[in-house]
Amino acid sequence: MRFGQLVQKLGADHHSLIAQTDLDPEVIGVAAIDAASTGMLSYIEGAKFAAQIDTTAASVLILPQDVTLQSKATERGIAWIAARDSRLVFAQAIALFYQPFKLPPGIHSSAVIAPDAEVGDNVAIAAHVVIQSGAKIGANVCIHPNVVIYPQATVGDRTVLHANCVIHERTQIGADCVVHAGAVIGSEGFGFVPTAEGWYKMEQSGRTVLEDGVEVGCNTTIDRPSVGETRIGRNTKIDNLVQIGHGCQLDEACVMAAQGGLAGGVKLGKRVMLGGQVGVANQAKIGEGVQAAAQAGIHNDVKPGEIVIGAPAIPYRVFLKASAVFPKLPEMQKALRELQKRLGMNNQTD
Amino acid sequence: MRFGQLVQKLGADHHSLIAQTDLDPEVIGVAAIDAASTGMLSYIEGAKFAAQIDTTAASVLILPQDVTLQSKATERGIAWIAARDSRLVFAQAIALFYQPFKLPPGIHSSAVIAPDAEVGDNVAIAAHVVIQSGAKIGANVCIHPNVVIYPQATVGDRTVLHANCVIHERTQIGADCVVHAGAVIGSEGFGFVPTAEGWYKMEQSGRTVLEDGVEVGCNTTIDRPSVGETRIGRNTKIDNLVQIGHGCQLDEACVMAAQGGLAGGVKLGKRVMLGGQVGVANQAKIGEGVQAAAQAGIHNDVKPGEIVIGAPAIPYRVFLKASAVFPKLPEMQKALRELQKRLGMNNQTD
Amino acid sequence: MRFGQLVQKLGADHHSLIAQTDLDPEVIGVAAIDAASTGMLSYIEGAKFAAQIDTTAASVLILPQDVTLQSKATERGIAWIAARDSRLVFAQAIALFYQPFKLPPGIHSSAVIAPDAEVGDNVAIAAHVVIQSGAKIGANVCIHPNVVIYPQATVGDRTVLHANCVIHERTQIGADCVVHAGAVIGSEGFGFVPTAEGWYKMEQSGRTVLEDGVEVGCNTTIDRPSVGETRIGRNTKIDNLVQIGHGCQLDEACVMAAQGGLAGGVKLGKRVMLGGQVGVANQAKIGEGVQAAAQAGIHNDVKPGEIVIGAPAIPYRVFLKASAVFPKLPEMQKALRELQKRLGMNNQTD
Repeated sequence: MRFGQLVQKLGADHHSLIAQTDLDPEVIGVAAIDAASTGMLSYIEGAKFAAQIDTTAASVLILPQDVTLQSKATERGIAWIAARDSRLVFAQAIALFYQPFKLPPGIHSSAVIAPDAEVGDNVAIAAHVVIQSGAKIGANVCIHPNVVIYPQATVGDRTVLHANCVIHERTQIGADCVVHAGAVIGSEGFGFVPTAEGWYKMEQSGRTVLEDGVEVGCNTTIDRPSVGETRIGRNTKIDNLVQIGHGCQLDEACVMAAQGGLAGGVKLGKRVMLGGQVGVANQAKIGEGVQAAAQAGIHNDVKPGEIVIGAPAIPYRVFLKASAVFPKLPEMQKALRELQKRLGMNNQTD
Repeated sequence: MRFGQLVQKLGADHHSLIAQTDLDPEVIGVAAIDAASTGMLSYIEGAKFAAQIDTTAASVLILPQDVTLQSKATERGIAWIAARDSRLVFAQAIALFYQPFKLPPGIHSSAVIAPDAEVGDNVAIAAHVVIQSGAKIGANVCIHPNVVIYPQATVGDRTVLHANCVIHERTQIGADCVVHAGAVIGSEGFGFVPTAEGWYKMEQSGRTVLEDGVEVGCNTTIDRPSVGETRIGRNTKIDNLVQIGHGCQLDEACVMAAQGGLAGGVKLGKRVMLGGQVGVANQAKIGEGVQAAAQAGIHNDVKPGEIVIGAPAIPYRVFLKASAVFPKLPEMQKALRELQKRLGMNNQTD
Repeated sequence: MRFGQLVQKLGADHHSLIAQTDLDPEVIGVAAIDAASTGMLSYIEGAKFAAQIDTTAASVLILPQDVTLQSKATERGIAWIAARDSRLVFAQAIALFYQPFKLPPGIHSSAVIAPDAEVGDNVAIAAHVVIQSGAKIGANVCIHPNVVIYPQATVGDRTVLHANCVIHERTQIGADCVVHAGAVIGSEGFGFVPTAEGWYKMEQSGRTVLEDGVEVGCNTTIDRPSVGETRIGRNTKIDNLVQIGHGCQLDEACVMAAQGGLAGGVKLGKRVMLGGQVGVANQAKIGEGVQAAAQAGIHNDVKPGEIVIGAPAIPYRVFLKASAVFPKLPEMQKALRELQKRLGMNNQTD
């Protein structure tokens, strides 16, 4: 593809694109800026990465709207496109060059499908898949090898289930979802009631629902509750190795990074973003647009729009300032003792 | 089922039940209190949830022993049962209405079972299960699709292995256990000895033992040791995505919430309860009845009965008080400096 | 095996071994020191465990180079070997007695292998394995049941893939690697770009590379990037339930303990050691030989050779001292207030 054609294709979506017009190199693929060779397209996100323009062998760069960076690229003979969101335009450029692997339609002879399961048109069902009684699979669904679908589960149109994932009984998965390898959806919530005779197992009669456009990462687990639903809202994206407990309700367009965990009955508002290894306690309500940095431990409700970190989680700036003082605690303790001694006060801080 | 019949069935186990006798509605199912409709049975755990009685559409409620709550329900025409442990009685009510999915007995033709494996009576072995040489499967065992059992493993009577879990060589699983989807039991401990030539792999010749009544969550991993055993005691319940290192010994009736991790050789006494994302360091001994709150990092032994939190873990109350002061550290540092200045002392806390 | 033979076999590698010569018991196996019975070989790592020599029933002990321990063993009639690294010699002794399970060579009839996949000599491919188009499997590779290999992946000679693991498209796995059960290698990086219309999915056109001698734990997930590579260096060992984000570069001989997580683009130098549940933020560069203790949260670059802990991670000794003062914060706050009051200053720390 010539650079001019690329600009045209990307520009269709982005009227704010500015492109250099003096050069028209051949573009043969996409690469990271430090690994790109001649003919490759790459990008930088901001002025912080300016030095990489001096050394890259890329023929084309997608740049932010920053005239200095653009001049730098021009000087080095690199064709460039400037965009309000260079990462988004780069993502769209990747899609022009990359053809993701898709299972060809058809049902492999080794798949075991219950006679009363319903299977839509044009599905791809790979080797050793098991689909049990009463399950309903939509049109154009793609089920990779060794996936197991328990009874009465439903899978919406165009959804992709990667290898070895498990969909438990009664789970409802919407359209255009992706469940990555090894994920387990709709498993029994962890419900045991203490009694004099030991732990009494609470039956988990509820179900898990993924609305349309949800993505669930590898080896992530999403439990169902004893009654009612665990519900993941539209377009919510969940990374690998995440735990979502019974009865959680995630609203639309949330993001949970890897290894985060929600205890039972947690509620996330719209567009909540939780960093890696974040934990949220039972029944906590996290308001719309809240962001929690990695490893935050959220014990209580968080108001909409807050940015929190730490365990127990507190506002981000407060945490950063307090953390900077934390290493000084021994000196502070010593200073306090000296002050107390000087004033003849009792020392109560040892 | 009429309310009267329900009271009779539940009362058989709970002689302390009090039931309203004026009403006898039809009960058709169980639901969460905020989602219940006419005919549904629900519950609340305590006075904190009293307001929900005003708005629920449930026909029957299980309540704690609290006369105010009972009057509230009576006023709204809701039949109620009052119990010492309303959550337990609700769990028992669910079991009256919910029929969990069970694999029908029989061995699917696609299962691959070694000729010298022993399989008990009345087992259910689903599609694509693999049972290797010398394995022993008890009576009434239920093995869901795509489970893999390595050689010489044993599985006790009535145990359920969910889809895609893996039981490694020599593992011993007791009776009445449940291993959830994707869990890996008896895998090689992480043992590498540093040498001048690099990491020397220590063979893991031991085995993992689950005693009777153990439950292991989805995608949880329990390693075996180089010598000896990793042992999970009777009726211990382990949630999803938990890691249990080589040689750990958990006593009976412990509970580990999701994403907790035990390093090698950890010992848990009876009825230890560890919250989500808790970590315990190598060889630590955790006494009987210890409770550790979510994300605790336990570096050392903990005495029986303690309740700890934080990393390093300290007593719960101490942590809560100190955490409340933590955000004030910058102000405290500033105040110290001013005091030092006032008294003409050197500032050593920057 | 007689003790004398054992000494000879172990001594071949360890010229610094000293062995007692008065005794020559039969050695029939290996065991932990507190579980060993007559005929068993065991070991202790240091003087800290000296008391166990008094009570063990082991016939042979591998000891550190400590004359007191050796005398203790001699007094109890226990044959002993003293070594500079008793744990390493014990590991080598285990290998003399333990025959790990290996799949017999051959391709099971239920395996589904694409016609254009290449399979080397002497492979073991177990039941229900799926190998897709264009994949290349080296010689002597061992693939356990229900493993799924996506198109164009390559697996080097002698590598072992345990049950139910998933190798995604284009992944390159070197020789002599071990991928444990349920691990997912080369899955799509978690890349979503925010737009006015919602999350735009960034295609993940890159690949994941495991160099020779890498070991990956059970249910661990290693993503591929949008462009370029995620790369795990030679002889790096990764424990269970670890998350490695898109584009991470781990140099050789690193170790990551269970449940650790690396966000996107993290770089680890040679021989970095990360404890359990450690998290490292996007793009952080961790220098050669860095050690991070369990649960550390690394937000920024770390210089070679540092030992860090805490979140945000700080030097180990600083953290220990500051953590010891942390529980005193309420008393310190109170003392500060009293000092301020005494000097007639405003209280600004409430």
